[in-house]
Amino acid sequence: MSLDGTYDDGNIFAKILRGEAPAARVFEDEHCFAFMDVFPQSKGHTLVIPKHSQARNLLEEDPAVLAPLILGVQRVAKAVRAALKPDGLVITQFNGAPAGQTVYHLHFHIIPRWDGVALGRHGAGGMADPAELKALAEQISAMIS
Amino acid sequence: MSLDGTYDDGNIFAKILRGEAPAARVFEDEHCFAFMDVFPQSKGHTLVIPKHSQARNLLEEDPAVLAPLILGVQRVAKAVRAALKPDGLVITQFNGAPAGQTVYHLHFHIIPRWDGVALGRHGAGGMADPAELKALAEQISAMIS
Repeated sequence: MSLDGTYDDGNIFAKILRGEAPAARVFEDEHCFAFMDVFPQSKGHTLVIPKHSQARNLLEEDPAVLAPLILGVQRVAKAVRAALKPDGLVITQFNGAPAGQTVYHLHFHIIPRWDGVALGRHGAGGMADPAELKALAEQISAMIS
Repeated sequence: MSLDGTYDDGNIFAKILRGEAPAARVFEDEHCFAFMDVFPQSKGHTLVIPKHSQARNLLEEDPAVLAPLILGVQRVAKAVRAALKPDGLVITQFNGAPAGQTVYHLHFHIIPRWDGVALGRHGAGGMADPAELKALAEQISAMIS
């Protein structure tokens, strides 16, 4: 899908926000919702999305939604670091299929990195074990401050 | 360099902000400064940094600096899209060497993507031609709105 198009509220993140699909929830406030990526590229791969938005990507987002969203990303990233003690953290956000986007509801990836550990390809390892994701979500959630 | 440490104001981005090192400037406002990456991973690879900050990464940044910074990223990303018409855009931000960080002043990468064109490795193609970067910076700058 290109950068052009219209928001489809049947996307999986919209379903998660409506409670129609499950997610290993890490954090939420009035602006954002954070949960574990089911196709993790590394242990602790977390997603942060706006709760009240019909933006497919960052380009389309209302600045009034984007500003509190990045603060949610920061807050969750700090908790990921505190919980899992990675050596580094990648924050990334894809716009359009050629950039790697697969779900068309704006989202930021928080991907912990460890020295000498290569990044997995998104989906290459298959879907993660839900119980394992729930345990990670609880570990990270406990470190939100 | 790990996630721990202290800000070193001898870093290249601090020098650019002080006018002690050159940069192909795309945009600046009171909060942020945008310029072309000298080791572009694709045509139009642009960086956006906070002007008044001693944060090495996103984790350390003052939320009062981070919120306007992401709005600058959005503004510049829209201009990159308008100027270069990529098929996609990656926005990414690295924290710590194992995540790919090489300069320890918080920065966001805006990396245009085109269908079927692989991403270059940072620095693998050597330093870009300054005249070419200046021309790209002018093209993007003209589309800031």
